[in-house]
Amino acid sequence: MSKIAVLGFGVVGSGVVEILGKHAGCIRLRQGDIPEVKYILDIRDFVGVNGNFIKEFSLIENDDEVSIVAETIGGIGAAYEFTKRAILSGKHVVTPNKELVAVHGAELLRLAKENGVKYLFEASVGGGIPIVRPMLRCLSANRITEISGIMNGTCNYILTRMENDSLGFDQALLEAQQKGYAEADPAADIEGKDTCRKICILASIALGKHVYPQNVQVTGIAGITLEVIKEARKKGYAVKLLGRVSCAESAVQASVEPYLVPRSHPFYMVSDVFNAVMVTGSATGEVMFFGRGAGKLPTASAVVADILECCEGDLPEENLFWTDSEGGRQPFGVPISVNKYTFDSGFELPILQTDQF
Amino acid sequence: MSKIAVLGFGVVGSGVVEILGKHAGCIRLRQGDIPEVKYILDIRDFVGVNGNFIKEFSLIENDDEVSIVAETIGGIGAAYEFTKRAILSGKHVVTPNKELVAVHGAELLRLAKENGVKYLFEASVGGGIPIVRPMLRCLSANRITEISGIMNGTCNYILTRMENDSLGFDQALLEAQQKGYAEADPAADIEGKDTCRKICILASIALGKHVYPQNVQVTGIAGITLEVIKEARKKGYAVKLLGRVSCAESAVQASVEPYLVPRSHPFYMVSDVFNAVMVTGSATGEVMFFGRGAGKLPTASAVVADILECCEGDLPEENLFWTDSEGGRQPFGVPISVNKYTFDSGFELPILQTDQF
Repeated sequence: MSKIAVLGFGVVGSGVVEILGKHAGCIRLRQGDIPEVKYILDIRDFVGVNGNFIKEFSLIENDDEVSIVAETIGGIGAAYEFTKRAILSGKHVVTPNKELVAVHGAELLRLAKENGVKYLFEASVGGGIPIVRPMLRCLSANRITEISGIMNGTCNYILTRMENDSLGFDQALLEAQQKGYAEADPAADIEGKDTCRKICILASIALGKHVYPQNVQVTGIAGITLEVIKEARKKGYAVKLLGRVSCAESAVQASVEPYLVPRSHPFYMVSDVFNAVMVTGSATGEVMFFGRGAGKLPTASAVVADILECCEGDLPEENLFWTDSEGGRQPFGVPISVNKYTFDSGFELPILQTDQF
Repeated sequence: MSKIAVLGFGVVGSGVVEILGKHAGCIRLRQGDIPEVKYILDIRDFVGVNGNFIKEFSLIENDDEVSIVAETIGGIGAAYEFTKRAILSGKHVVTPNKELVAVHGAELLRLAKENGVKYLFEASVGGGIPIVRPMLRCLSANRITEISGIMNGTCNYILTRMENDSLGFDQALLEAQQKGYAEADPAADIEGKDTCRKICILASIALGKHVYPQNVQVTGIAGITLEVIKEARKKGYAVKLLGRVSCAESAVQASVEPYLVPRSHPFYMVSDVFNAVMVTGSATGEVMFFGRGAGKLPTASAVVADILECCEGDLPEENLFWTDSEGGRQPFGVPISVNKYTFDSGFELPILQTDQF
């Protein structure tokens, strides 16, 4: 039986423990045994919660019984350090940590390859929606020419509430916070940084080369007023924050910015906290993945799917992999769309092309 | 380098050869070499087409160099016989053949397991849309509670043309045939048999037990008149042919029938030849896969993705697998939905529930 360690007992970490425990009956086993949680690392004290809580990472690092580490700490600091140490001590690492993958993915994937282990992050984009593995394994006979996505539930909830209930931006943000969708500090969401990290991860998979967040031009939704939303609606558009990457032979263009989505585009109906990612393959054309892009159990179930894949013993060289992009094609932050709509106020937004639907 | 044999040089078979040849540069290699097509089996003569055409299956069966067989013959007869013989001679088999998988899947999966090879069929449902592998590998920490899908592009094209252009059923069918979407004999499509095969395959994956087509209640779209479509539209519904399976603990209910889809449901915007499959997982909630459900290159690219997976050398016991359903929970053909709408004419259609969106 595989033994695992969970780093961080927050929303997703506790969800992983819950799914492997209470919900174990739901896991469709191709393997035999359900992996056992041997350690939960957290600097906080949890009263009345069962679990083998520890505060020292070295216990995990030095325990040869632990073959898989689920990093659900988030951010760069401790998560980055523990991920490297886990990989160096021969353990697979799985994570929903989009920030760490977007910034240090190439290095961590290389380190994992060198140490014969896996570094998997299905949950880092779209929460419980399958995206990373389908792109890698189902679209493997395609050249990916474009990826677009509504990838931040908080922004989409705010824009939906503004459109449907005529709320101002601040009021809609406040409601998102009250409902627990937005963080107390919502900057990473509404400024587009979270979407940027996710499009960088998908772009890196598609290109096989790391696309770094600092190379993407990012515009958030703070400039979207109720007047803009209303005028857009009158013209038949919904306003959506899109992460996009276009992978032409000669150049890569990546951006995050609000778009006007026409009614005939499948993104038009993606409202509230739902996410959708559309991938264009040279053979399949457009395929879209849709669902709830966040939440405790959806995200945790994607982490557990990665844990189960680590249990299976695929050869590590068949992993998810991309190289560092030094000397490679560098993305530059030019918006992909050329058609723009000018609002009465003079404000401009690009219009998403929709010929294919 | 893996060598493969392609059985049948029709639309999909020639697409597989095309992708492995001309489009080889698009294949994102995790492996090294592109698999080589050593034989193309077809009883017809092709003048002016390059390829190692043969007419005797025994040449493939007895050639140890061939490790993968792509069965793109379709139907049951020769496809069934050659699939069994290929598996028994130790070759992996990949296919888009939904009829064969829906009828003999349990037997062929068991045979593959016994012979240490794979039997893969990503392309059998949704053409180039990733569905089978994401369900199996990404939703592996979920119990699947429901699957619904618009899975026949011909029917969806006909219904869309009736709704958007006020065509009668016969006229819309004729146009579908002229555009090459519908077969000369469109019975399997419009009677719902094709959708039935696909929902049986997805239900079998979800349950781990074979759900046979004869246990599913099937109603096609031949009874849908222009009057029905118009009245439905006035009430805010689109008419869509849905395959559905509900997997409760106690019983399985599977059906194929036309539904009224409300505007707030993501299926509402799935028009023309597009397909969409929605899977409800116990942890992820609803996730939807959307794209073109048929066509030469989309379908062929899914077959090639399966070929690439066979090249990778995963252990065969980690395969896609379901058991025969003798003695297991048997599906019975009771429609899942209880809410029905009665048209002015007295005709009734079930209404798709949409609370979750």
